[in-house]
Formats: sequence, C-alpha cells, structure tokens
Amino acid sequence: MTRTNPYNSGLDKNPANFVALSPLSFIQRTARVYPERLALVYGERRQTWAQTYERCCRLASALAAHGVGVGDTVAVMLPNVPAMFEAHFGVPMAGAVLNTLNTRLDAEAIAFMLQHSEAKVLLTDREFATVVERALALCDGPRPWVIEVEDPTAPEGKRLGETSYEALLAQGDPAHPWSLPADEWDAIALNYTSGTTGNPKGVVTHHRGAYLNAASNVISWQLPHHPTYLWTLPMFHCNGWCFPWTMALVAGVSVCLRRVDPAQIFPLIREHHITHMCGAPIVYSMLINAPAALREGIGHTVQGLIAGAAPPAAVIEGCEQAGFEITHVYGLTEVYGPAAVCAKQAHWADLPLAERAQLNGRQGVPYPLQEAVAVLDPETLAPVPADGETLGEIFFRGNVVMKGYLKNPEATAQAFAGGWFHTGDLAVTYPDGYVKIKDRSKDVIISGGENISSIEVEEVLYKHPAVALAAVVAIPDPKWGEVPCAYVELRPGADTTEADVIDYCRQHLARFKVPKRVVFVELPKTSTGKIQKFKLRELAKSASAIE
Amino acid sequence: MTRTNPYNSGLDKNPANFVALSPLSFIQRTARVYPERLALVYGERRQTWAQTYERCCRLASALAAHGVGVGDTVAVMLPNVPAMFEAHFGVPMAGAVLNTLNTRLDAEAIAFMLQHSEAKVLLTDREFATVVERALALCDGPRPWVIEVEDPTAPEGKRLGETSYEALLAQGDPAHPWSLPADEWDAIALNYTSGTTGNPKGVVTHHRGAYLNAASNVISWQLPHHPTYLWTLPMFHCNGWCFPWTMALVAGVSVCLRRVDPAQIFPLIREHHITHMCGAPIVYSMLINAPAALREGIGHTVQGLIAGAAPPAAVIEGCEQAGFEITHVYGLTEVYGPAAVCAKQAHWADLPLAERAQLNGRQGVPYPLQEAVAVLDPETLAPVPADGETLGEIFFRGNVVMKGYLKNPEATAQAFAGGWFHTGDLAVTYPDGYVKIKDRSKDVIISGGENISSIEVEEVLYKHPAVALAAVVAIPDPKWGEVPCAYVELRPGADTTEADVIDYCRQHLARFKVPKRVVFVELPKTSTGKIQKFKLRELAKSASAIE
Repeated sequence: MTRTNPYNSGLDKNPANFVALSPLSFIQRTARVYPERLALVYGERRQTWAQTYERCCRLASALAAHGVGVGDTVAVMLPNVPAMFEAHFGVPMAGAVLNTLNTRLDAEAIAFMLQHSEAKVLLTDREFATVVERALALCDGPRPWVIEVEDPTAPEGKRLGETSYEALLAQGDPAHPWSLPADEWDAIALNYTSGTTGNPKGVVTHHRGAYLNAASNVISWQLPHHPTYLWTLPMFHCNGWCFPWTMALVAGVSVCLRRVDPAQIFPLIREHHITHMCGAPIVYSMLINAPAALREGIGHTVQGLIAGAAPPAAVIEGCEQAGFEITHVYGLTEVYGPAAVCAKQAHWADLPLAERAQLNGRQGVPYPLQEAVAVLDPETLAPVPADGETLGEIFFRGNVVMKGYLKNPEATAQAFAGGWFHTGDLAVTYPDGYVKIKDRSKDVIISGGENISSIEVEEVLYKHPAVALAAVVAIPDPKWGEVPCAYVELRPGADTTEADVIDYCRQHLARFKVPKRVVFVELPKTSTGKIQKFKLRELAKSASAIE
Repeated sequence: MTRTNPYNSGLDKNPANFVALSPLSFIQRTARVYPERLALVYGERRQTWAQTYERCCRLASALAAHGVGVGDTVAVMLPNVPAMFEAHFGVPMAGAVLNTLNTRLDAEAIAFMLQHSEAKVLLTDREFATVVERALALCDGPRPWVIEVEDPTAPEGKRLGETSYEALLAQGDPAHPWSLPADEWDAIALNYTSGTTGNPKGVVTHHRGAYLNAASNVISWQLPHHPTYLWTLPMFHCNGWCFPWTMALVAGVSVCLRRVDPAQIFPLIREHHITHMCGAPIVYSMLINAPAALREGIGHTVQGLIAGAAPPAAVIEGCEQAGFEITHVYGLTEVYGPAAVCAKQAHWADLPLAERAQLNGRQGVPYPLQEAVAVLDPETLAPVPADGETLGEIFFRGNVVMKGYLKNPEATAQAFAGGWFHTGDLAVTYPDGYVKIKDRSKDVIISGGENISSIEVEEVLYKHPAVALAAVVAIPDPKWGEVPCAYVELRPGADTTEADVIDYCRQHLARFKVPKRVVFVELPKTSTGKIQKFKLRELAKSASAIE
C-alpha cells in the first residue's frame, strides 16, 4: 500500500502563497516604503525612488505600447547613466529581456549581437554613435528601433535615435499595471561573453537567480539599509553584478558616472560620502596610484568588492593602506557576477598585511545563496584533495547559474555536462576549503611537460617594485614546447631592464617557471580592466614568427 | 503564426542551475566556511558549527535508520536547549517534518496534536513529563517513539523516553549523506495555532518559505555576520521566527536558555555580549521593570525584535531608555513569524520619543522578501483608503505564506479565499502606507452599534502610571449590547482605584469607549506572553452571569 503524504494533500500553490521570485518586487517595495529617499545621483541630477519607479513604469508602458513583450530583447549601449539603471527595471517590467552591450566592442561584434538576440529596441548614447551606426549598417534583416538617451555631458557624437529616451518616457504611463513574470525561470537578461575565439555566447539569466544574487550581495557584504554606492563597475558587465537590483532591495543611492577616472571618483567619494563600490583590480590600481592630493579630505573607509581577475596581493595590500576595505569575490557572467567570496576569518585580522592579502586573494567559498563552488577533476568530477596543490577545474552549482546560452544547445550542454557549470578556470582547494585560481585552462603554459601557472609567475612580477601590471603567456619553444613570456607595464617613472626582471624571477620561482623573455609595453585591456591575454598571445606568436 | 520564445528554448532547469531552496543549505555552508566558530552556548556547554552540523547529520541518520522519512512527523516538546536547535536541521535533513509543541499546553491539546500529525517520534524533556505522560495515555492507536533529551539543569520530573537523545545521536552517522528536499514546496515544519475555539489548526510551512524568511530576517534587521543571539523567544513559536535558520545563514552564536527570567538574561547579555534578541512585549516589559542592579555593567545596546502582540507605546519607549533598540515586526504562524516590519524612516529620529514610539508601534510594511501586506475590505478585497481611519482586515500575499492547514481543506480554502491570506486582524492604513492593527476581528467591542477597538482603550490604560499590563474585553450590557471591561495588572508597588482609572480614560477617550468596569488581576498569559483574552472573556461572562 502506498501511503499518501499528508503534507502534499490539498496544500498546493495558490496566488496567496506562491509568487514568482523577481527583483522587480524590490523596486516596487522600496518605492512604496521609501518613496522620498534618493535613488539616483548623476551630476546635478537627483532622483527619488518614487520618481525612479514611475520612470521605470513609463518605460515598461511605452515599450509595451510599441509591441515589446515576453521573448523580446531590448539592447542598450550605455555608460553608467540613470537610463541604464532604469532599463534594469523597465525592460523586464515589460516582460522583455535586457541585453546590455559592452560599450568597448567593435561594430562587427555589436552587429552580431543585435542580430543574434533579434533586438527589437536599442537604447544608445552619442558617445558610441560611430560604432553603433556601423553596426546597424552591418545588420541584415530587421533593425532595432533606436532610442537616443540624451546626456548633455556626453562627448560629441552623432544623434542616431529616432526618438529620445525622455520622449519615449513621456508617452508612457507612470501607473502602468505591469506584472511579475509568469514564471521565475523566465529570462531577465542576456549578456554576451567576450569569447576569445569564435562568436560570443549569449548568457541567459532568469528572474529567480537575479532575485537571489541581489539578496546574496546584501548578506555576503553585510550591506546596511541605504548604502551610497558608486558605479565604478560597468552595468553592462553581468548587470553590474546584480547591484541595480541590490540597491533596490536595500533602498540605496546609486551615484552614476560615465567613466572610471580617479579625478572624478575621489571628489564623488568625498561629496556623497560613498560607502560602497565595486570594480576590477585595475580600478583599484588606478585609485591607489592616483596623486595623494586627490584623496585629501576623505576620512572614511570605503567598502570595495573586487573581482574580474585574480587580484594581485599587492593591489589588495595597497587598497588597505589607501582606505578601501576590500572584499574579494569571484564569478563569471554565467553565474551573475559574484558567486564566490573570499569570506574573511576572524583570526586573519592578526596576521601581517602581506599574509592577510594573500589569504584574501583567494577566490574562496560559495556566495551565501549559491549552493556550491568546487574544484573537481574535469574528467571524473571528483573533488581534488584539499592540499593547496592539486590542480582541478572550478565548477559551480546552484540557483545563481544561468539558464544557458541563447540558441547554442551544444555550448549549453557542454557548460552543464555532469550537472555542474564548468568555468574553465583551473584552481586548487586549500586545506581550509578555500578555492584559489591558478589559471584559465587556456592560460596554462606547458613547458617540458610541466604545467606552469601564468598567475603564479605574474604574482612574482607584481612584487617587483617597478612593475605596475604584468601578464604572462606561452611562446613556442623548439626545445620545451612552450616557455613563459612576460609582458610588463611599468609604474610611472619607474625603470628596469629585462635582465633585472628575469633575475628577480629567478630568486622567487622554480627555474622552469622563469620567463624567458620580458617585454615592456602598455598592456591591452578590456573595458572592465581585464588584460587581454589573447592579444598578447597573438603578439607573442607574430614576434616568434619574425625571429 | 505563433513565434517560439527563444529564451525558453533548450534552456531548461538542470542539476547545475536549479536546486531546491532550503535553509538546510545554510548550515551546510556555514559548517564548511566557519567550522570552528561557535554555534551554541548553553550553560557551560560550547558547540562549534562543525560539531553542530555533525550532530544534525547524526540525528537525521538515526531517524532515517528508524524508518522516519518524507511525509513523517517528528514532534518535539522542548525548551530552548541545543537539541531543540538541532532538531530544526536534523529532522528536515531526514526528509521529515518538525512539529514543535507549545510546552505550556495541556495534555488534551498535546494528545490531539500527536494524533493529528501522526507523530512517529517525540523528543521530550522531563520538565514536561506529567503533561506528556498523560497526553501519551490519551492517544488512541499508534504512539510516537519517545526520545528523552536529558538536561541536568531541568527541574525534577519523570524520565519517559525509551532512549536518550545522546544515545540516538551515538547511533547516527556524522557524515550521513542526507539530501535536500526533492521539491522546495515540501513541508519543513508543522505548527499548531492555539485557536481559542475548536481544535487547533496545523500550519504547514515549506522549505522555500523558510529559506526566504531566514534571509529576510537578515536583510530587514541589517544582521551582520556572527551576531550573538539570545533565545528569549521560544523556538516552538513559529520555529523561533525562522531564527535557527537565520543563525545558520549568518554563522551566529545561539545562546540558549530554558526560561525567560531577567535574573538570567542580564548576566547572559553581559557575559556573552548579546547583540540580538527577539520577544513578545511581555519579555521587554519584564526587562524594563527588572531591578536596575541587574543591568549594571552592560554598556552596549542590544538589538531587539518585538512582536507577538501590538506593543504598547510605553513598552517601546521604555526599551529605548533601557538600552534596547527595538524594531517592531508583525506576523502570524501562517506567515512564518515576522512578515511585516515597521521600517524606520530617517526623519523619525528627530521626533520626540513618545511620537517615535507611536510611529514604531505600527505593524508597518511588507518584510523585504514578502510580496505584500495590505488592509483590504474583507468583502470586496479592495484596499481601504490610506487615511489612518478606515478599518479593514490585514491580508498577506507572497512566498512567506504557509502551504495551508494540515488535513483541513475547509480552513485552508477560507484562509486563502480570493488569493490573499486572511489574518483576521483589523487595521487601518496610514497615509505613509504603514499598517496599524486596531484589533482582532473577535476582539472588537460593539457598543450601541459603534465599534470600539480594544487596543485603542488598552493603549490609554498603558499610559496610566500605575498600570503594568491591560486587556479590554466586551461584557454584555442590556442597554448597549456590549460595553468594554478592563482587566488591569498593576506595577509592583503601585496603587490606584477603579474610579481613578475610569476617570483617566474619560480624559483620553470618547465617552462610549470608556471601560464600564475595571478589574485588578494578574492577567492570564500564553507562554509567549500574549494575554489570553479568551480567558478574560470567559471570566467576564461568568461574572456577568452571577450578577
């Protein structure tokens, strides 16, 4: 006899006890509870949560009136301006999917994305007019309806939009009766990853994950109510790590800015008493290395999340000295930005700064509402020993993992093979359970059959007093197969030689890991400050070919 | 032509990107990330998160070995001791449902619950042996397997358990491979509401709601990592408002205690530097009115959540003066404890204490992860005007709402009629959107066709200097139908007369609202400090009958 489970009998979901999880609920609540509190600051502009919510409703209403709805894509090519923040609410309120485009991409990439996502609408800014105009010209078939977000502080550029953003909002209803998604699994955003080979892949995220990671940001970072958050992280990067939604949840103030420039950042920190910010190591490097005069008059500590590349210990150390209390997070577009955190342990506080920086430089443990991050053998999916040495691949599992790649079933299947999301990052697990990245799979240098972690070599280079930035890639070698080649950007005013750097590496690294060549250059970087190793690899290849 | 939504095509749930939401994930993560941090303090006992997690695994394993699994009920009749905390994890880890019994109930009620829930196991404490023994004797059919939780500090009492809790754990596997629930909608707990008429109703809650409300507690209360939480709120009351799970999420310390006694509480606050606690107004009243000597040496502020009855402004005011920073929350068993919060507005801080206390005494706005709390017309479900005057009923909607009542389809259907959960509490909405309870439906006094809010009368009584506690109920009146009758408990050493109290009320209330009688008594209370108005009503009825 099968016994009926009494706890499942007549106790079904109904509209009173089950509602789709969506970060749109956060702005609705905050606009109601804190209508008069500040939501957005941009130059002289100030906007409350009630005003912001009304503008988002107008956007949703106007989009809906133009036939945009469930399954449609709205693309945006915008810097961190208020319209970009509003799009994170107004677009999904219309049932549509927000595709934030990386503003540093070229016309070909943008054209590919607009076509692949079948974008119905494109919000753009005149700063990017040249690229966008070319991209639109490259589009076969239907082109998106272009809306111009006008910003008097934007650099000169052609106006491409058929309508202005403000005119569009004026058509919308501030009391638009939008609905939460029918299903929390519905897509909320599309973010293309800047693949180094082949076409970009479109990462599709859902309302459930965005809701949970927005909450996870609060819990992980101990965010209080009403933080003042500086937008040094591009919102086009994994939806600003879910922080537009997080700010709605905690009724924070978002201080917007068009570009990352220490000469603007320090005055904003001072004027608005910024409490929180996020960014790649390059952002913090800029702040550390900025003239001390810029920092004058700032007496408070700014909480900073850092991610986007394994932060060199020197950067973490420098931040602490410069008044930024850094928390290191790790993630990828596929996991909504941060999905692991180097959670600080109480006893670390007593350690010397350098040691503390080293501990904090690890990728850490799962984010509070992520189920798991683990270093597994990529073949067997068995965990590697927690010995700090055995290399495996980092895998994620949980509710803060994408739906998959848009129109790319093979890549989706590959990414999820075995019931884990494959990051492609190579790492070790320390005895305390913390994960530490050693390299991207493709960045490992295999020399004479030995694996060399390019990150390990870079960490040594970062300790050299003349080095500002460093990247190590493989160059072909007739004897060893591959050998490491270092590309180095020097600190302003610093001076050194190839021989000196190689000698320094010899003192700190096993002989086979020492770079055979050191090249002094300005390193190519993405808009988020990631060093573009693939460009260096091409450079290295052509250099080898010439020799 | 129907267009396929590309965002739903080939982007299904899989084990990598979808995991059932369950608070069991929190203890798993915390045991891994903070294994050596303190989880439990009880007398001289100290237990880390690693140890606590192992003990919960052992409990789950031992229960499973005894055939307890999905659909089964494990009842517990325990004070706030470590085993009670562990049961919140170990029982659902076995797939079973935790039924925490109110330790103040009588044998008949306990017997009803054990039979209604078909409890397979009962964990008990010798303090409650007399009641439990009688309850077991009253059970027809199969009785639960009784486990004795041994506590040397418990009052004398008969040992009923066939096995001790520690012996049970010893049989269990500390590395038991338990699983998350197959579905986040699966039941996690069963809590009987102490209905004033008819049989108690069994509120069934689910893993999803417990997960979300545990997180909501953190976000709403700005909980930092590692708070030190004092268990002044019974865990049998709505699972301690989800705080066992919240403590697992933020890796906090739970300081356990068997009973609420100021002579124990202040030393614990001092010794362990308690940062957070919860309780009914009666708990805070006791602390405010405790001898000042007990409070000596406590220099820090304790954050306190208050709920369980509309807190009189005098209590909120007294707490502020006594070093407790109070946040007022509101909820019911059906919404997992707190599901609304009187969120503080910045400008309140500048108001006089009495005015601030009045604002803070309202039930407020939805909890961060609850969708809605609203005052609606119970007939039409239309919102009442936000005028602070129009009476309606409070309704909840969202993910922090029970599955329904166990084996009670009619009560479930009634509770959810119209797509909202009906609380039975009567309230108004203020112009700022905050909800304020005026009365329980059944507590309204109808006098000469006018509704009298018993709470309004009680609030006036609480301002009288001699009054410690007050409750107002209806007594039959030949002329008016009903008139208010006040039951009053005086402050220690205070003295007054019926005439004086009536006169005081005349100065502050419309004439028809003034109590016609004032009776000085020790008020009957539930274990959570709620005044038992139904007992007073019976008292009033028999008194009227005699006259």
